[in-house]
Amino acid sequence: MRPAVRSFSLGELVDLLGGELHGDRQRLVHQVAPLDSAGPEHIAFLGRDAYRSALEQSRAGAIIVHANLPGSGRALIVSPNPYAYFVRVAGLLNPEPPVLGSVHPSAAVDPAAFVSASAEVGPFVTIGKGARIGERVRLGPGCSIGDFAEVGDDSCLHGNVTIYAHCIIGLRASINAGAVVGSDGFGGAFDQGRWLKMPHIGRVVVGDDVEIGANTTIDRGAMADTVLSDGVKLDNQIQVAHNVQIGAHTTIAGCAGIAGSARIGAYCVIGGGAIVLGHLSLADRVTVSAGTVVTRSLDRPGRYSGIYPTSEHRVWLKSAVGVRKLGEGEGQGRGRSEKRADKAE
Amino acid sequence: MRPAVRSFSLGELVDLLGGELHGDRQRLVHQVAPLDSAGPEHIAFLGRDAYRSALEQSRAGAIIVHANLPGSGRALIVSPNPYAYFVRVAGLLNPEPPVLGSVHPSAAVDPAAFVSASAEVGPFVTIGKGARIGERVRLGPGCSIGDFAEVGDDSCLHGNVTIYAHCIIGLRASINAGAVVGSDGFGGAFDQGRWLKMPHIGRVVVGDDVEIGANTTIDRGAMADTVLSDGVKLDNQIQVAHNVQIGAHTTIAGCAGIAGSARIGAYCVIGGGAIVLGHLSLADRVTVSAGTVVTRSLDRPGRYSGIYPTSEHRVWLKSAVGVRKLGEGEGQGRGRSEKRADKAE
Amino acid sequence: MRPAVRSFSLGELVDLLGGELHGDRQRLVHQVAPLDSAGPEHIAFLGRDAYRSALEQSRAGAIIVHANLPGSGRALIVSPNPYAYFVRVAGLLNPEPPVLGSVHPSAAVDPAAFVSASAEVGPFVTIGKGARIGERVRLGPGCSIGDFAEVGDDSCLHGNVTIYAHCIIGLRASINAGAVVGSDGFGGAFDQGRWLKMPHIGRVVVGDDVEIGANTTIDRGAMADTVLSDGVKLDNQIQVAHNVQIGAHTTIAGCAGIAGSARIGAYCVIGGGAIVLGHLSLADRVTVSAGTVVTRSLDRPGRYSGIYPTSEHRVWLKSAVGVRKLGEGEGQGRGRSEKRADKAE
Repeated sequence: MRPAVRSFSLGELVDLLGGELHGDRQRLVHQVAPLDSAGPEHIAFLGRDAYRSALEQSRAGAIIVHANLPGSGRALIVSPNPYAYFVRVAGLLNPEPPVLGSVHPSAAVDPAAFVSASAEVGPFVTIGKGARIGERVRLGPGCSIGDFAEVGDDSCLHGNVTIYAHCIIGLRASINAGAVVGSDGFGGAFDQGRWLKMPHIGRVVVGDDVEIGANTTIDRGAMADTVLSDGVKLDNQIQVAHNVQIGAHTTIAGCAGIAGSARIGAYCVIGGGAIVLGHLSLADRVTVSAGTVVTRSLDRPGRYSGIYPTSEHRVWLKSAVGVRKLGEGEGQGRGRSEKRADKAE
Repeated sequence: MRPAVRSFSLGELVDLLGGELHGDRQRLVHQVAPLDSAGPEHIAFLGRDAYRSALEQSRAGAIIVHANLPGSGRALIVSPNPYAYFVRVAGLLNPEPPVLGSVHPSAAVDPAAFVSASAEVGPFVTIGKGARIGERVRLGPGCSIGDFAEVGDDSCLHGNVTIYAHCIIGLRASINAGAVVGSDGFGGAFDQGRWLKMPHIGRVVVGDDVEIGANTTIDRGAMADTVLSDGVKLDNQIQVAHNVQIGAHTTIAGCAGIAGSARIGAYCVIGGGAIVLGHLSLADRVTVSAGTVVTRSLDRPGRYSGIYPTSEHRVWLKSAVGVRKLGEGEGQGRGRSEKRADKAE
Repeated sequence: MRPAVRSFSLGELVDLLGGELHGDRQRLVHQVAPLDSAGPEHIAFLGRDAYRSALEQSRAGAIIVHANLPGSGRALIVSPNPYAYFVRVAGLLNPEPPVLGSVHPSAAVDPAAFVSASAEVGPFVTIGKGARIGERVRLGPGCSIGDFAEVGDDSCLHGNVTIYAHCIIGLRASINAGAVVGSDGFGGAFDQGRWLKMPHIGRVVVGDDVEIGANTTIDRGAMADTVLSDGVKLDNQIQVAHNVQIGAHTTIAGCAGIAGSARIGAYCVIGGGAIVLGHLSLADRVTVSAGTVVTRSLDRPGRYSGIYPTSEHRVWLKSAVGVRKLGEGEGQGRGRSEKRADKAE
């Protein structure tokens, strides 16, 4: 683990972040830690559904809790959302290094690009003509910003990120290494035995406070924009296809794929490796379990799943035969139930 | 959306692309658009299976159709394949910027590499010894072309693409950002508690008119070449393992994985997130649904699926128990049906 | 295929690698090849479970076998593990080019970084302050090594690899192009309608003899380290989330995803596209079939599977309806079997 950048007293913390302190204002905390591995120099938190015994067994110097626990003999900070409080403390103890207003001499910045004086442009960065880099933006080594693309104030792009021409990144974005925004969408017309490539004239438009994980890819729209709304959080290795729209504050876990023209609502949670097929709509507050292939629109909030249960291999062998037999029944014609599966597709 | 580079009159379009014009030759179209959002300045198309009412409700200035629709009161272009015609129009209105014969001064080009005078080599591009870059090739910022690798005429590599040594890219390739061609294949020999790495002496050989999506990876062969035939289209985030062969004009959607030594036929369509296990063969014109794990060779054309149906979570809980029970039956011994599942694996 | 760098006589091979030669010590082999495509200039191997007829039909000049086969009329080398022997021969015939102790003039090396004199630093490489690059390390074009990161002796990083600050790579690592080590982990606290980003203060710590595939991503830990033990082999396009621990000599195939805080034992084999959910534990020597979503901890060695069987699409339609019906039974309340599925989740 990295050492923290500076220490805080508990008094300073409640002055900055609120909360009700039960304990010594002068006590210093030097780093955050999980409850079970924390030492006296650490501050930890007790989740709302954790057992009180976890608190008593912890060696943490201070603990954030959601209600006072008299008699615990610890320095406690009471806050209605202990984890959120803890995350804020972690940010205070471990601030990002300050952004230096500087352009590395190796960077290739087009004379017709605008780069704010407060932006930090790393080595081997390319910025195309008409591009616009906002205040306090950090562009890591090897990033490439296409012609007429925009990166909003206070955004951070780690190394080797590629933003294609004309794409828009909002304020305070965090984009991890190797991510690609604005690549050509997939598909085209089939004609005389060959596929013709459809030129993609849409953009990717990313709202404010969006995170994009390492090596995640987001395709530009064909004839409209691909849109990520404010507060969207994308993990690593995700594919977002052309014309997709993702609602505000939706989170998508690693390795998921969202096929073309799908519309995902706000505050959705898509599990790792899940796939949403093209042209489907998911309502606000839909949760999709990891590994599920979503084959139909989901119009109501709630949790949806479709995962083959994990078994010992020899058990699976029999179970798979059983599942296949369900589809091999003789003489059943094409009845009502089969139509329902068609719809599901 | 980006503005189009230039406008065309309907007369110019039919002179260039054929088709039968019903309407004013002088009428100008400024951009392509979908039928439902098009305005008078746009040209749209009516798919073969769309309803005529969609045409009547559209505000498009001109519409491409597969048969004349008298009395529609629109400028129409009749073509047997309206979408393909539309894609060609989109290409005319939105041409790629011309390739400039130039090498950015920052590029690191080995003296023993050959770069055509008409190629455009961007900033921070590395080209190794013995490599060969064809006519009108565009290499985006940060691309790396290994020793003795070749990139065919009129190919475009976007930013941060890595082509390993000795790999061959054909004519008119389009390779999106972050793609990797020629990485070492996976696997080796297990000996005395450790894995020994097998040196990979094969190449990746890519035919003509191939598209490779953003962050897609293609491993070199172990003792033979990994081969992508002419016209293959790969979406983003795909993994193609060592020694795979993919037949002409096959398309593979995002997040799919093709395991080692698999052979995929021509004109196949592999859905997003599908997996084809190693050493399997797929016949020509096989379609695999998104999310399907192909566990056996598929010798006949047709569509194949294997997706757990998506349900509300509480319904899935019961269904998963039912599926597992199919495998937990007592006293069944190892009979005929189990052997069939074995084969399927 | 690439030509071999040099030839060896069979006598030289057994002198260097052991084994029992039956044949002419002077006979030269020029390259390795599979048994069925080998010619007289090649050396091949006969797997332990291959048929002897494969040997007799081969044109290979020499064959590595696990037991002498009198009367075969071939030059044979007998070794208890023919494939491992073959891999070692392949390494002798096809050595990596020697590492040149040199720093490309374009590289951006912080004055406060340590780079061994024997390391080869390619074009457009960035090395941050306090970073440490070991003996004979090779850094390909466009690699970025963060502040205070370390790369151990004899490691090779191909093009465009990003190592974030403070991460540690052990000895003899092989990291393929586009891989990312140390990106921020995913997730944070939800507070007042927004997600707060948790600062990640852990590192990624990679042991010795580890391979990391192209475009694979490994997140740093939140408050502890993400750990890859010695001898771990990761294929391409894999996502390893924050705080994951992977035991020694475990191999993971392409497109797999390991969710946060999962613990994978030693000598495990995880199939392509498999997903291991967060916080689960897998015992040593667990094998997970390709495409399986592991939804519960696996405490015993063995093979586990959970894949929907691949069928013709029309068969699947019926089978999927059957599976769904298993979950839609009426009037069953919440009984014992449902609880079991809950556990499985």
